[in-house]
Amino acid sequence: MRRTALLGTLRHPARIVPLGFLAAIAVGTGLLMLPVARAGDGAAPPLTALFTSTSAVSVTGLVTVDTGTYWTPFGQVVILVLVQAGGFGIMTGASLLGLLVARRLRLRDKMAAASESKQLALGDIRRVVVRIAAFTFAVEGAVALVLFLRFKTGYGQGWGASAWNAVYHSVSAFTNGGFSPHADSLARYVTDPLVCLPIVLAVIIGGIGFPVLADLARRRGSPAKWTVHTKLTVLATAVLLFIGFAGYLALEWDNPDTLGEYGVGGKLLPAFFSGAMPRTGGFSTIDTGALRPETLAVTDGLMFIGGGSGGTAGGVKVTTFFLLAFVIWAEVRGEPDVSVFKRRIGHTVQRQALAVALLGLACASTGTLLLLLFTDFGLDQVMFEALSAFGTVGLSTGITGDLNAAAQTVLVVLMYVGRVGTIAVATAMALRVRNRLYRYPEERPIVG
Amino acid sequence: MRRTALLGTLRHPARIVPLGFLAAIAVGTGLLMLPVARAGDGAAPPLTALFTSTSAVSVTGLVTVDTGTYWTPFGQVVILVLVQAGGFGIMTGASLLGLLVARRLRLRDKMAAASESKQLALGDIRRVVVRIAAFTFAVEGAVALVLFLRFKTGYGQGWGASAWNAVYHSVSAFTNGGFSPHADSLARYVTDPLVCLPIVLAVIIGGIGFPVLADLARRRGSPAKWTVHTKLTVLATAVLLFIGFAGYLALEWDNPDTLGEYGVGGKLLPAFFSGAMPRTGGFSTIDTGALRPETLAVTDGLMFIGGGSGGTAGGVKVTTFFLLAFVIWAEVRGEPDVSVFKRRIGHTVQRQALAVALLGLACASTGTLLLLLFTDFGLDQVMFEALSAFGTVGLSTGITGDLNAAAQTVLVVLMYVGRVGTIAVATAMALRVRNRLYRYPEERPIVG
Ligand SMILES: [K+]
Ligand SMILES: [K+]
Repeated sequence: MRRTALLGTLRHPARIVPLGFLAAIAVGTGLLMLPVARAGDGAAPPLTALFTSTSAVSVTGLVTVDTGTYWTPFGQVVILVLVQAGGFGIMTGASLLGLLVARRLRLRDKMAAASESKQLALGDIRRVVVRIAAFTFAVEGAVALVLFLRFKTGYGQGWGASAWNAVYHSVSAFTNGGFSPHADSLARYVTDPLVCLPIVLAVIIGGIGFPVLADLARRRGSPAKWTVHTKLTVLATAVLLFIGFAGYLALEWDNPDTLGEYGVGGKLLPAFFSGAMPRTGGFSTIDTGALRPETLAVTDGLMFIGGGSGGTAGGVKVTTFFLLAFVIWAEVRGEPDVSVFKRRIGHTVQRQALAVALLGLACASTGTLLLLLFTDFGLDQVMFEALSAFGTVGLSTGITGDLNAAAQTVLVVLMYVGRVGTIAVATAMALRVRNRLYRYPEERPIVG
Repeated sequence: MRRTALLGTLRHPARIVPLGFLAAIAVGTGLLMLPVARAGDGAAPPLTALFTSTSAVSVTGLVTVDTGTYWTPFGQVVILVLVQAGGFGIMTGASLLGLLVARRLRLRDKMAAASESKQLALGDIRRVVVRIAAFTFAVEGAVALVLFLRFKTGYGQGWGASAWNAVYHSVSAFTNGGFSPHADSLARYVTDPLVCLPIVLAVIIGGIGFPVLADLARRRGSPAKWTVHTKLTVLATAVLLFIGFAGYLALEWDNPDTLGEYGVGGKLLPAFFSGAMPRTGGFSTIDTGALRPETLAVTDGLMFIGGGSGGTAGGVKVTTFFLLAFVIWAEVRGEPDVSVFKRRIGHTVQRQALAVALLGLACASTGTLLLLLFTDFGLDQVMFEALSAFGTVGLSTGITGDLNAAAQTVLVVLMYVGRVGTIAVATAMALRVRNRLYRYPEERPIVG
């Protein structure tokens, strides 16, 4: 009986994630509008609360007000809980949807989303949730411990402050939330590997996606047996981390406002940290507003691509991007099949990747255009802001706080759509297969 | 015997267009480097000649030097001949390649590129060339006649000047070349419908593509019998012309430097003219450099989309863009087939459209990034310039003449690739079908 009811609710599982996020954002907005949440007089205005709640639940990290001074400790805890809930919701939601899709489609082949799909029963759902929760708290706990020791011994922070900062930044890192109680994000730790490296590691692990992590845990020693999804994600992550690192290093090398002030060796850590954040950690140790236009453009691309599927990262996802690259390669080479790591990629997945990427492009472009309309900032700044919101990255050239209500609303929509949109659309696509009783005759328009 | 040799050459027809354009550019560069081509002392520097020749052959219209004063009448005639040759080469090349592809694939269904493919023999090629030439000169002649009468009677220009300007602008309009002997393009005729409308008409006809014109001529009275390609192109052209018109009208309405100075009725003509030029005429009657950033962004999009296949327009082509929109629509709706006007669009064409659009995006993005690196101009200006070059549009915010050698070289490459690249790639794709003897098992990575 309970099973049937649950199944009924899950009949349109594509709706659960969008509605769940809306509910979480609404609750968060309500809590942040309580006078007890705001440090100054009175309560936070609705738009400020909505913006902050959306940014937290979508694990973006863009802020119109300074997290550490505008909100009380209560407000900051609300934000952290929203970030944790948002990040957890994304990981479990994506994994569960993957399992449901696998069930619905009755695939015989193993699916990247759920290799265990053959034996899956609804009772297994709880096991998935518990497993993700355990993993989340293990990583966050370990990172928080390292940060705590460092803050306590290296920066003379008290027990309470060290613990608070350690927990806040570890949760914010693993969930890719990007929130920091510090107004200048992590700029004060720019040259400290004992702070930067644990955080960047948590960001990468959280952003690689649970399906990949599960596959890696199962088949640690034999990369040859990894699913195509895992291989693609691991390869893409490595490639994009290198591009980010090399890009920041080369383009900002002699920029006196960013990497220019450090010696040759000293540039490496901030370049690696900055290069890893566009996908999609959102912390910064160097001033994003001082980056050169070409660095902003490279970052734009990395933010749009984002991280792994089924994780806390945003963007159109690395698998989408790299699959499309393989499609183009097959097309240019004249291969009838698209093959990746000796596996054929079907038309259905190709079309999904195409739709996800182009809808993402349409969203980001529309957002950029609207920000141009509503503000007087330049294209480089508003495009960066729109891509940061859509990719739920949270980096900003510094204009977020100066945006008017219309522009803030655009970002709220972008953060929400960026967070749930592509997942929701992709899942809806995989589930709602309608069969026409007739097919139209084929015709070949000329393209290009 | 002659037939076999011809067939041999055409075995790799995808190479004919790229090589033909290279040869034309080389000849043009050589001619423009002659001292007799330059109005001032000495000969034009190689890069200036190369840039101008590439811009002319690719019918772009971007200039680093003022056409009317830097070049002698001889130089200007060279440019016009290059423009005419480039435009003619594109139309015939695209049509002939379409016929060859049809032959090679032995399609039984009618193809948009060549509905007459069933009866086609190589001897028909001459007929196609003659037909396109006749049509070209008919349109150019008619437009030139109207312009001549207008220049002679309305502006008090002499017989010679009227004829020169009329021929120059009509050829430049029909081929979408965008070159003008006037330094300010057509700004002096901004409110004159008798100049603007014939030119805009020639631009639209030239940019709609010969396959569509042929289909329209054959089946004028029965739109129901048009090919999908024709329907799609006509619909897309109408939609994009309206978007351009409405966009310029709404966004520039009260901009004192563009449409603001005209009365309500007076804004209509320049808005229509400006809205039609991004695809891809390249003339301007209002100052592109004074446009608002949001108008530049809309124009960026229009320039990237471009015009019809097999015509003188550039960009990724309207059919490519609209086909992808239909693919996304089918995906979101969960339809297994992509249907357009009651015809099914096969996976092959879908993949071609995807490759053309994304390779175009990659080219334009790379070009923009390089221009950011090589110059100090803002993102809005260099992105506009890169898209104008890649889309062979020829509009500019006014920075072309101030670009250094590296940036000019980037534009030369963009103009060349934008002109021949997508055609060449798409054709190579359609012709080089290799069959693997084995297929890999299918696997479904997660996207989005
Ligand atoms: K983030
Ligand atoms: K042009």
